[in-house]
Amino acid sequence: MPKKPAPGPRDERGVLSARILAAARDEFAQNGWAGTTIRAIARSADVDPALVYHYFGSKEALLDAATTPPQRWLESVAETWGRPVPELGEALLRLMLGAWADDEIGPVLRAVLLTAAHEGSTREKLRAVVEASLMGVSQLGIDERDRLVRSGLISSQMMGLAMMRYVWRVEPVASMSEDDLVAAIAPNLQHYVEGNLT
Amino acid sequence: MPKKPAPGPRDERGVLSARILAAARDEFAQNGWAGTTIRAIARSADVDPALVYHYFGSKEALLDAATTPPQRWLESVAETWGRPVPELGEALLRLMLGAWADDEIGPVLRAVLLTAAHEGSTREKLRAVVEASLMGVSQLGIDERDRLVRSGLISSQMMGLAMMRYVWRVEPVASMSEDDLVAAIAPNLQHYVEGNLT
Repeated sequence: MPKKPAPGPRDERGVLSARILAAARDEFAQNGWAGTTIRAIARSADVDPALVYHYFGSKEALLDAATTPPQRWLESVAETWGRPVPELGEALLRLMLGAWADDEIGPVLRAVLLTAAHEGSTREKLRAVVEASLMGVSQLGIDERDRLVRSGLISSQMMGLAMMRYVWRVEPVASMSEDDLVAAIAPNLQHYVEGNLT
Repeated sequence: MPKKPAPGPRDERGVLSARILAAARDEFAQNGWAGTTIRAIARSADVDPALVYHYFGSKEALLDAATTPPQRWLESVAETWGRPVPELGEALLRLMLGAWADDEIGPVLRAVLLTAAHEGSTREKLRAVVEASLMGVSQLGIDERDRLVRSGLISSQMMGLAMMRYVWRVEPVASMSEDDLVAAIAPNLQHYVEGNLT
């Protein structure tokens, strides 16, 4: 990381805590919950481990902070689910593509997916993010079971696309334009939104 | 692991190497390439580390052996791609569901997906398995680019379903019947096989 001018007292905490969070995302994603230590995160962020404890309190709280999407992501999810049903497939896909391209949201989504790949407790976090991303789906389906099936199938396509494009970077999916992806995939998402699934 | 009767000299090698491979899959999936040691694998398999080196030679060779699908998987993939185009969506999905349920193939696929979630060298392995699973796709698409796009989109849906159902175990996708999944998802795969994607 290039050295920046020393921050003034007012914004030092914000700068340092953002640096610790970025380091935590990388370390948890790379080494999983069990394989990550506060010491390694502090080293990667170039701060004293005591500062990490001072800002975040515990390894659990740090993971939580590192994998919690920003409020404006949750707001844009809620707004998208309010769109007319016939537009939902495309709107959800564009929301996801935009989020991964976002400097602030993309690294969080990446950390959640990679950390969730490790067994155990971290999988709950992914489930929470999936559920938060599917909030507002009350307009989906004919009953609770149907709604959950449709949400789950939408997630399966979106998560698979995210893994292929952003995590594993398999070509040509990794470099296709947003419009080409929408043309190919949005009709399939729309099938999960309102098509006959039986 | 329950104690089994001591194997005779003839099959001891097979039994021990299968035990080492199973332990290696778990360790690599859990802790990634960098976080896994031959010593930890040997401990988990309850054998001497020297035996792991004797059988597999190196950590690289052990990862390779642990994440290479059995020959009969590659044969069933090739056979499936030979099916008539209008049946491919359903046939590919049933192939994948059967493979994950298979005692021998399922753990390999799981290890590949989880190991590939870690950054770096292990991602190449996933790419190789994806490519091997998409062999025989010459009947797809109108040219090389179109064929790769269709293969990649099929993979995105299949991988996302595998993550949701078998790795993250998000309900209700994790416990839906095979027939219910086929009814819901096969038409979308068929769209990627032969639909208009533009």
